[in-house]
Amino acid sequence: MKARSRGLSRVSSTSHEVAELAGVSRSAVSRTFTPDASVSEATRRKVLKAAAKLGYQPNVIARSLITRRSRIVGLIMGEWENPFYATMLRGFSEKLQARDYQLMLLTRGPDGGVDSALRLLMQYRVDGIILVSCVPSPQVARQCARAGARLVIVNRDTADMPAVGIGADAQGIGRDVAELLLRAGYRNIALVRGDPSVVVGIERSEAFRVTIAASGDARIVINQTGVVGYDQGRRFLHEAMRHDPRPDAIFCSSDLTALGVLDGARIDFGVSVPDQMAVVGLGDIPAASWGPYALTTVQLPVERIIDASIEALLTPAAPDRGEPIVMAATIVQRATVRAVSDLADRAHGS
Amino acid sequence: MKARSRGLSRVSSTSHEVAELAGVSRSAVSRTFTPDASVSEATRRKVLKAAAKLGYQPNVIARSLITRRSRIVGLIMGEWENPFYATMLRGFSEKLQARDYQLMLLTRGPDGGVDSALRLLMQYRVDGIILVSCVPSPQVARQCARAGARLVIVNRDTADMPAVGIGADAQGIGRDVAELLLRAGYRNIALVRGDPSVVVGIERSEAFRVTIAASGDARIVINQTGVVGYDQGRRFLHEAMRHDPRPDAIFCSSDLTALGVLDGARIDFGVSVPDQMAVVGLGDIPAASWGPYALTTVQLPVERIIDASIEALLTPAAPDRGEPIVMAATIVQRATVRAVSDLADRAHGS
Repeated sequence: MKARSRGLSRVSSTSHEVAELAGVSRSAVSRTFTPDASVSEATRRKVLKAAAKLGYQPNVIARSLITRRSRIVGLIMGEWENPFYATMLRGFSEKLQARDYQLMLLTRGPDGGVDSALRLLMQYRVDGIILVSCVPSPQVARQCARAGARLVIVNRDTADMPAVGIGADAQGIGRDVAELLLRAGYRNIALVRGDPSVVVGIERSEAFRVTIAASGDARIVINQTGVVGYDQGRRFLHEAMRHDPRPDAIFCSSDLTALGVLDGARIDFGVSVPDQMAVVGLGDIPAASWGPYALTTVQLPVERIIDASIEALLTPAAPDRGEPIVMAATIVQRATVRAVSDLADRAHGS
Repeated sequence: MKARSRGLSRVSSTSHEVAELAGVSRSAVSRTFTPDASVSEATRRKVLKAAAKLGYQPNVIARSLITRRSRIVGLIMGEWENPFYATMLRGFSEKLQARDYQLMLLTRGPDGGVDSALRLLMQYRVDGIILVSCVPSPQVARQCARAGARLVIVNRDTADMPAVGIGADAQGIGRDVAELLLRAGYRNIALVRGDPSVVVGIERSEAFRVTIAASGDARIVINQTGVVGYDQGRRFLHEAMRHDPRPDAIFCSSDLTALGVLDGARIDFGVSVPDQMAVVGLGDIPAASWGPYALTTVQLPVERIIDASIEALLTPAAPDRGEPIVMAATIVQRATVRAVSDLADRAHGS
């Protein structure tokens, strides 16, 4: 009885009661609870005091029908396995909250389901949608744009879509890691990544391949896709050890994969890293710096990606298509690639 | 100009246009888009076809004013550092989505800010709120209950609050880990956890302490709070090595802390684990099973906690207060505690 009756009980105090207790107009109450609306400080204080006393909460849902702004931003997570993305989600949550926007979180379904997630978010009249590592069909993206919801796509290609693309500089990463490995003297190089259809992965790999090829004396001996996470990385290393020629450097498209490769090399085969083999990751997750690993990896500009995404969503004058916004990444040199100075020592010494 | 005009443009097609194109009544359109409403399959198909053609999306916000149900569940994250909680968030997102509910995500502010997050969620007329590892004030919890939003509090005490508490069996965990260490022959035991005010942590520690004390010949030599995460765990181990007597077993309240302790012991001091020292974690995060670690830890019943939380939120007949729902956890024995059979070998052998 008690549980059933709750749905019918009075939801909360009304703005009329607040206005009466505060001795102000209902419009003053409304303006106090509308972001950016004009109201005097004295009135605001009276209203907030009365509202606190009565337990009044403004109904933002009713307000959104008038303002046509829900102050909700939708976010669709296309990828959860990598701890890197939880860090990004946390940043979006905290920074949107600080700007008085709420985050409605959806996960891409097992069937791909990005389009259905977008349609659902449109039903809530969200002000904008962030897609993390997933893309909708161009058709549904255009429906969103027509309905007034701005789209930001993080870390994926935005060709043919009315959306702002934001991500790390994939080509720069491919080129920089290739140059690091070449300078350190590695010659038989393996390239490992996950989903072969992801455009930023293709761009990164292509820049890596071209840089290695241009060196003249180094070459790509394995170019493998479909390897994701620690366990698959460790299994991949077993295959790589049987490959002829055996790679002396492995560049992985995620830190988790790289940590699996590293454990496979050191624990399962007793390979000396970085002397006999280099391993490079991507993402700089916390575990990359832990004692047994000290992984050389690429730190992605997460904070800048989050800030640029929020700007693109919430600033009225931001462009809603065109060239993607690309941010430089940084190589973090730890202990899984020979330092170039080691190489110089070797040339002079033994 | 283009960007500015979007806010004023027509939001989408109307249900009237859909009804006209489908040759049905507006009420039929409305029922097609209302969960659990009755509509014939033939009508539903006609409506969906017309809606797809016109790009129509029902306005769930307008509907929520009538049904008083927003189909939004709020979730407040009180803890992000531990990868365990990202796993939990992912589960809530996927399972609520499968039940046609949306998740509005908030993060507890740096000042604690759980109450302000709850007030914000009430403004969106959410159907229920999940608090993960954080608690509101009893007063604001009561305001939520009065407004018809059910509260579920995961992994925290719910005393004096109109909320359903759900979590792992803290006392059982404390007792089981203590018994494991005693059976394996450890005698000088350290207990390490984070926030000293967390009730489940106090209950777990107390059950652990009582079990150790009851053994007669083992004792707690360090009982330390305020240690959170890998780096602090590793620093704590340095202190523990200087302690007299030095602990021969360390039970940490999170896997991240335990991995830091383990690296401190093995890498910084060359301690042989589990021969000279046992380390036990809590959470069973993926890294606990990685090659260099093989951490003995406690697996928490995450899926069951998520399922029970969603049931408690969405089932009308669920109790809204009373005894917390407590679920048994499981010890995962890997390589950082001596197996009891090793101990038997030792007694018979050398």
